[in-house]
Amino acid sequence: MEQDFLDWLLPRLPPDPRLEVGPGDDAAVLRPPAGRRTVVSVDMLTEGVDFQLGPDGAAPRRVGHKALAVGLSDLAAMAARPEAAVVAVCLPRVGGDSLARGIAAGITALAAGFDVVIAGGDTNAWDGPLVVSVTVLGSVAPGRCWRRDGARPGDVLVATGGFGGSILGRHLDVRPRCAEAAWIAERFAVHAAIDVSDGLSLDLSRLVRASNAGAILDLPAVPIHPDAVRLADTDGGNALEHALADGEDFELLMALPPAAAADLLAAPRPFATPLTRIGTVTVGPGLSARSTDGRVAPLTPRGFLHAFEG
Amino acid sequence: MEQDFLDWLLPRLPPDPRLEVGPGDDAAVLRPPAGRRTVVSVDMLTEGVDFQLGPDGAAPRRVGHKALAVGLSDLAAMAARPEAAVVAVCLPRVGGDSLARGIAAGITALAAGFDVVIAGGDTNAWDGPLVVSVTVLGSVAPGRCWRRDGARPGDVLVATGGFGGSILGRHLDVRPRCAEAAWIAERFAVHAAIDVSDGLSLDLSRLVRASNAGAILDLPAVPIHPDAVRLADTDGGNALEHALADGEDFELLMALPPAAAADLLAAPRPFATPLTRIGTVTVGPGLSARSTDGRVAPLTPRGFLHAFEG
Repeated sequence: MEQDFLDWLLPRLPPDPRLEVGPGDDAAVLRPPAGRRTVVSVDMLTEGVDFQLGPDGAAPRRVGHKALAVGLSDLAAMAARPEAAVVAVCLPRVGGDSLARGIAAGITALAAGFDVVIAGGDTNAWDGPLVVSVTVLGSVAPGRCWRRDGARPGDVLVATGGFGGSILGRHLDVRPRCAEAAWIAERFAVHAAIDVSDGLSLDLSRLVRASNAGAILDLPAVPIHPDAVRLADTDGGNALEHALADGEDFELLMALPPAAAADLLAAPRPFATPLTRIGTVTVGPGLSARSTDGRVAPLTPRGFLHAFEG
Repeated sequence: MEQDFLDWLLPRLPPDPRLEVGPGDDAAVLRPPAGRRTVVSVDMLTEGVDFQLGPDGAAPRRVGHKALAVGLSDLAAMAARPEAAVVAVCLPRVGGDSLARGIAAGITALAAGFDVVIAGGDTNAWDGPLVVSVTVLGSVAPGRCWRRDGARPGDVLVATGGFGGSILGRHLDVRPRCAEAAWIAERFAVHAAIDVSDGLSLDLSRLVRASNAGAILDLPAVPIHPDAVRLADTDGGNALEHALADGEDFELLMALPPAAAADLLAAPRPFATPLTRIGTVTVGPGLSARSTDGRVAPLTPRGFLHAFEG
């Protein structure tokens, strides 16, 4: 029952000085950090689309981890500091209690690691699949957030990590690039940024579209994740294609003026996450790709889009 | 498709000075009102539990209205001023586009009426029923929010509106009591408050449990909504029982010291919503009910709880 779960959960949520009123009331009351903006993003994950449960699927703890992590990745893409989250779930009536506890365990463990306070939630049940929706709140100094629409022709595109093949498991074990974003934002002029959730080429196309620009992607430079190579070996596909279109990498893609990009790539960094120059912003519109032989051809953005109609 | 819907929706969202970055980026950036706390609440509604669709069910616009309204009701119960909302939906693949537009119409109309900025969202699709989750953000002066845990023995219980029978349609056409709460909070010492979402007796029991107190409910004083009478006529039940247990009334239940309650009930008010004295806070624990004949007997809280197990 809902009340049993809450009686189990609420004492497990650590007190936090940011909470004037914590979970258990009609709403939570937060003390926002003085002089900063509030950054907010919501993500909903559904069983069968964003994760699978069951013997061959993900443990509930990993589902909880992912549900919060994708939101933290959004905050990273804004160069915002994570502050708080609220969690809504709709549980299947049978097995819902152990699911709820597993999800909560995944969420609270990640929240502790990123100094995020779980401020509240909503627990529902139905005769349907699991749904988890997490709203994250972050903070950023006025005018200092990263946006999608600030890229300028000539900017250099820099990406964190590697791309492709996340379906092999990495799409659950998302590592939000918050620390990387905070460090970079403090030191380097980033004109625009996005996190790669739906596919490197698709999300790049969104960034440059928002900026009224285009981009050339240096295909030989794209950091192909070992998962993309493994997946291509299995499905007979092409690892680069997986890197360009798979999505759920939750890496950052940033546009910086050339000098800032060069400084960033040369600087000693306090994190192991690779940074790679993968292309250039152009007048555009649209994407192009430069192949190993130097030829440039139009690139059709591909990736994941939710399909519905009517 | 997701992109078509967003291309339709985003130009329809009015600009707002509270937004440093609006919908369409990885996250929204809000300018929080200076010197105030941030109040946050999330509610998830699911087809078949919180609403029905189809020819005999609710129009999508009413579903959108309800999804935002229940969150605004939570803010009212905290005496918080609504500021912003983010919306996550999971749409059925077939019919999802018209559903999404109807839901958006209901949400944006209510948002305009309550001066709420729609700051962002997440649009998903699956082969399943409709899910809508809304996170509301409000603001309140430090230390001035209403909580559940401040009721004291001797306090008088005052309720807005009437109770019972909301299933006849009122549960969709929720009227959040934000204006009433704001007016009352500015003038009268409210020790504790809750909004009645799951049943008058159940939510009263939650308020007094949080306050380490009890309550006597004056049964003859409980404002029975005409819907409860209609429903009792239909199902052979008892209108008072419906008023005590049905839930989804989204009225406010407040505990005030006797003098403040008397002043409130006597004051000329700028709103038509009735206010009724319905009982008294006791040392407790637990609920009692006083009948017409003056006899006091224990009252078992009843209402809606999400059931899940295992």
